[in-house]
Amino acid sequence: MSLVLDPAAQDLLFREAHTANAFTDEPVTDEQVQAIYDLVKFGPTAFNQSPLRITLVRSPEARERLVQHLAEGNRAKTAAAPLVAVLSADNEFHEELPRLFPHFPQAKDVFFAQRPAREDAAALNTALQAAYFLVGIRAAGLAAGPMTGFDAEGVRKEFLDDDHTPVMIVNIGAPAGDAFHPRSPRLDYTEVVTTV
Amino acid sequence: MSLVLDPAAQDLLFREAHTANAFTDEPVTDEQVQAIYDLVKFGPTAFNQSPLRITLVRSPEARERLVQHLAEGNRAKTAAAPLVAVLSADNEFHEELPRLFPHFPQAKDVFFAQRPAREDAAALNTALQAAYFLVGIRAAGLAAGPMTGFDAEGVRKEFLDDDHTPVMIVNIGAPAGDAFHPRSPRLDYTEVVTTV
Repeated sequence: MSLVLDPAAQDLLFREAHTANAFTDEPVTDEQVQAIYDLVKFGPTAFNQSPLRITLVRSPEARERLVQHLAEGNRAKTAAAPLVAVLSADNEFHEELPRLFPHFPQAKDVFFAQRPAREDAAALNTALQAAYFLVGIRAAGLAAGPMTGFDAEGVRKEFLDDDHTPVMIVNIGAPAGDAFHPRSPRLDYTEVVTTV
Repeated sequence: MSLVLDPAAQDLLFREAHTANAFTDEPVTDEQVQAIYDLVKFGPTAFNQSPLRITLVRSPEARERLVQHLAEGNRAKTAAAPLVAVLSADNEFHEELPRLFPHFPQAKDVFFAQRPAREDAAALNTALQAAYFLVGIRAAGLAAGPMTGFDAEGVRKEFLDDDHTPVMIVNIGAPAGDAFHPRSPRLDYTEVVTTV
């Protein structure tokens, strides 16, 4: 009751939402992905750096190339998912900063001239955007199956370039009847939060 | 129209929500923080590892100790915010895994026996949970002012221990009238998403 978000929205995005391991055949359209992106692009990042890049793996040939780099337990469900997205960090995001952060266009050179600083910032902020994207998938009434069990270097070489680091792969679709494991326990508030 | 999330919820969480730089005096209660946590704790993490830890900096003395470790531009607004939370990664999260991921209790030893593997996993998954937490702050009708401009080692020594890495500091409160900068541009869908 301390929340103002509608309870149905709470359920859709968090309480009833579950990582999905199986999906129906219903396709996920580009229009849906665009609607998701156009919602979650407003989620905050440091200096509005927005380093998330998304590769939609649609063709059967590309799907096959992706699956070989996944952990064994992630292969079958990814091969069968209606849509698979590779989420990656653009380590050259600073090139866009003068446009994305116009009230301090010097940020590009002051903070991000060095690649290691960019990689650190991109890793954190891409993860933030990946989380917003997962919330957005649920906002579209779809289920997400996020995975970090893959050979990142293999996926990078297969689909990206030296300037991009894959951080997560997400299966997307309408959940099948057997999509969900039982909800695992969460840490209690008192285990997570301390006050000083 | 591809989204099923109520438009008011879309606005509350993303479209109208803004990083806040100034707040009213209205307090943020522990009940509100617990309501936020009890919503966003359901957001997915790899192996349900849930590495996010939250330190609420409430006492004036603690607030003073925190502010000295912030970038100059973050100090005044943080000193004045109704509530400030230090979000950190628990690099020893694997100790909880047998309880948090009961259908594969071996994960603790198979994947996370080594500290570097834990630090990598905790960095990514804490960032995901930090993003969920920001969404949750907005779900409570509050505004968030997330910051990464601080001396992480200084904050760690001041408030945490060797097993925790601070990843973000968040000012929380009801936004003041002058809380918001104008919305910065976002990358277009076609700049972010490619299809293979």
